[in-house]
Amino acid sequence: MKKVGVAILGLGVVGGGTYKILKEHRELYQKSYKIDLTVEAVLERNRERAVSLGVEPEKIAANIQEICSNPDVDIVVEVMGGVEPAKSFVLDCLHAGKSVVTSNKELFCKYNHELEVAAKKNHCGLFYEASCVGGVPVIRALLDNLQGNKILSMMGIINGTTNYILTKMAAEGAAYEEVLKEAQKLGYAEANPSADVEGYDATYKLSILSSLAFHTKIPYTKIYREGITNIAVADIEYGKKFGYVLKLLAIGKNGDNGIEVRVHPSFIKSTHPLASVNDSYNAVYITGDCVEDVMLYGRGAGALPTGSAIVGDIIYCATHTNYQYSTFKNTEGPAPGTKFIDNFESAYYIRLNATDKPGVLAKVSSVFAKCKISVAQMSQQRDPACEDGTVPLIFITHVTHENNVNRAVKLINESDEIAKVAAVIRVVS
Amino acid sequence: MKKVGVAILGLGVVGGGTYKILKEHRELYQKSYKIDLTVEAVLERNRERAVSLGVEPEKIAANIQEICSNPDVDIVVEVMGGVEPAKSFVLDCLHAGKSVVTSNKELFCKYNHELEVAAKKNHCGLFYEASCVGGVPVIRALLDNLQGNKILSMMGIINGTTNYILTKMAAEGAAYEEVLKEAQKLGYAEANPSADVEGYDATYKLSILSSLAFHTKIPYTKIYREGITNIAVADIEYGKKFGYVLKLLAIGKNGDNGIEVRVHPSFIKSTHPLASVNDSYNAVYITGDCVEDVMLYGRGAGALPTGSAIVGDIIYCATHTNYQYSTFKNTEGPAPGTKFIDNFESAYYIRLNATDKPGVLAKVSSVFAKCKISVAQMSQQRDPACEDGTVPLIFITHVTHENNVNRAVKLINESDEIAKVAAVIRVVS
Repeated sequence: MKKVGVAILGLGVVGGGTYKILKEHRELYQKSYKIDLTVEAVLERNRERAVSLGVEPEKIAANIQEICSNPDVDIVVEVMGGVEPAKSFVLDCLHAGKSVVTSNKELFCKYNHELEVAAKKNHCGLFYEASCVGGVPVIRALLDNLQGNKILSMMGIINGTTNYILTKMAAEGAAYEEVLKEAQKLGYAEANPSADVEGYDATYKLSILSSLAFHTKIPYTKIYREGITNIAVADIEYGKKFGYVLKLLAIGKNGDNGIEVRVHPSFIKSTHPLASVNDSYNAVYITGDCVEDVMLYGRGAGALPTGSAIVGDIIYCATHTNYQYSTFKNTEGPAPGTKFIDNFESAYYIRLNATDKPGVLAKVSSVFAKCKISVAQMSQQRDPACEDGTVPLIFITHVTHENNVNRAVKLINESDEIAKVAAVIRVVS
Repeated sequence: MKKVGVAILGLGVVGGGTYKILKEHRELYQKSYKIDLTVEAVLERNRERAVSLGVEPEKIAANIQEICSNPDVDIVVEVMGGVEPAKSFVLDCLHAGKSVVTSNKELFCKYNHELEVAAKKNHCGLFYEASCVGGVPVIRALLDNLQGNKILSMMGIINGTTNYILTKMAAEGAAYEEVLKEAQKLGYAEANPSADVEGYDATYKLSILSSLAFHTKIPYTKIYREGITNIAVADIEYGKKFGYVLKLLAIGKNGDNGIEVRVHPSFIKSTHPLASVNDSYNAVYITGDCVEDVMLYGRGAGALPTGSAIVGDIIYCATHTNYQYSTFKNTEGPAPGTKFIDNFESAYYIRLNATDKPGVLAKVSSVFAKCKISVAQMSQQRDPACEDGTVPLIFITHVTHENNVNRAVKLINESDEIAKVAAVIRVVS
């Protein structure tokens, strides 16, 4: 039986889950794949944590060099997160001829070309299914299954923390800050939650996924990003009355005029398959010119679901030899002729806190007309009344350009007679 | 650029779709995968159909031998359906050293071992993603992504025709026969619909999918099968009142006591992700011991969605060399120690048309108690009244064994005082 040795860098949540899966499934893998997968080394500063997981003390490496020079290690799992020292460690391992499996979206999104060059030069594999949407098989679906398509669009709920928060806000009518605190207590949000709630995590993942889907590198810096920190629970409630559910969506579109990529809070129709993806579940909804609509749904995070993706990659790496072709794609830079669209088109939900005086609606309407915004639905809310005596006026617009809305918001906010724009949320279909 | 020649056996719906995709995406594949994919031959008795699709007359082969001996053909796409002559043709192609991509679930389910032996002997690839659930990437997910898991269960809506019929019956309150006729008119059901409506098609697919999931061959003959031809629209309506939706589910479970595999109409809670899979959409809901729940959703049939899966396999085959490992699994026969469970456990929906006399409920209850069936919910319906003056009595049972229910049905039907069992539908969670 082929012996395959694994090293794990970082025994946090995902590293611990991966260790547990490999340990408990050793016999299954021997029987099913004719390989004997064993953990030969771990790199973990917290020695006690390693020992409590059952790691033999002699397998706890003192430094990355011990792992690079260990002849029993074939595949290195990097689950430390962050750019450094993960990047240096991964490069060290590749240069030492070890294949690498990583769950590190930030590292892979920012430095995948550098990693690809090192992997190819040293004839190693580099796998990253676990970097996006945990156990949901979306990267291999894009690489292998959907490769006959021109992918027209993808829409994803690809961050579990924000989906948990928005689901709770909608279900309980609780405010953002309150739900965030609860999520932190439960371990669903980090002490410093900005990577999740500000949408950075989702942009890293969208960069990786849309680069595969659209056959060109999509740098994460090209992705429009807006988090959920300013979402008022009132807007979730108002949206519900119009038949919408609020989600933090990662959106990529590949149209005739170019590519648009964006992460922002979005209202979608409550009948859309993504609308019922709740709590920490994730899903990616992909539209191809042949396959039509496909949705991949499941746990986007967690020790065992993410470990499932990592171990899937480990077994793939251990049982294949020509894996280079199938894992690298579009890492170098945007292909010649790639155009990015900033001034994208969307429908919009706009809430004004309007002064309760005659003529306000006429003034708002005239600003909208001036900015080429056409209103599809409108509603004046009385309940709950605003503290400052203003009245919530809600508009759902027809599809228009982002710039038009920005201009209208500016004009309305500059007018003393109309009062302020309280919320602008894109409506996606 | 690497030139790769394709031959297509059968230019029906899926063959025509595949031809169109290859033709229209040639440049995309050149640019993205550095391969020049061209259709070098077709085998189609209806010459006019081939010509109308744009096939050059000189590329229409007179017989399979012409394709086998054509040095420009590297990959053969078999989309004829049925066992013969598809089986002989595929074996001829493999023996001639051509790799094969097939969408033929019946052929692959019944003869995959024979095909595997021929493919391996001749160092050819044999791909079958399109055989199950059209464009939805479920086979590669089981092969590559979820391979670290012990798969505990899978539940699928894997036949588009029956899902279309059941969705229509539920939405319109129309009878089975009526909706079937409409589906036939629209081309969603065949003139002879039995492969779909009797559940055969679903058993072929479940055999393929569960063999991959459970790491042992699941012969389709081991799958319990019950179609939708006896479903009364009244039961769909009654089920709705209990919060259930009726679906033809393909179910595989891999428990401590053995494997159970079955295809039958099933009530599932309306909040289950599978409940909102409507019309001709398909989905597979997989539970693994690491990944937890994953659902893969999309178009399970149709020219372009199924063509998407076929072309994905063609590109994979054209760009890989060690594909043998990744496509064959568990074709020879059930692994030693594989146990199949016939007398499976389920909750049940049971409708009796009961005589409207005192004591009936007591008698039914005593039969249930005798058969170890415990009732979870019960409802006596007045509307619509049965033509024969009987009263619909509906029971939802707790989980019990299949044999217990069969025994109870027999006892009730034998009793003149209670009247007849009108429907028994398993309730799945």
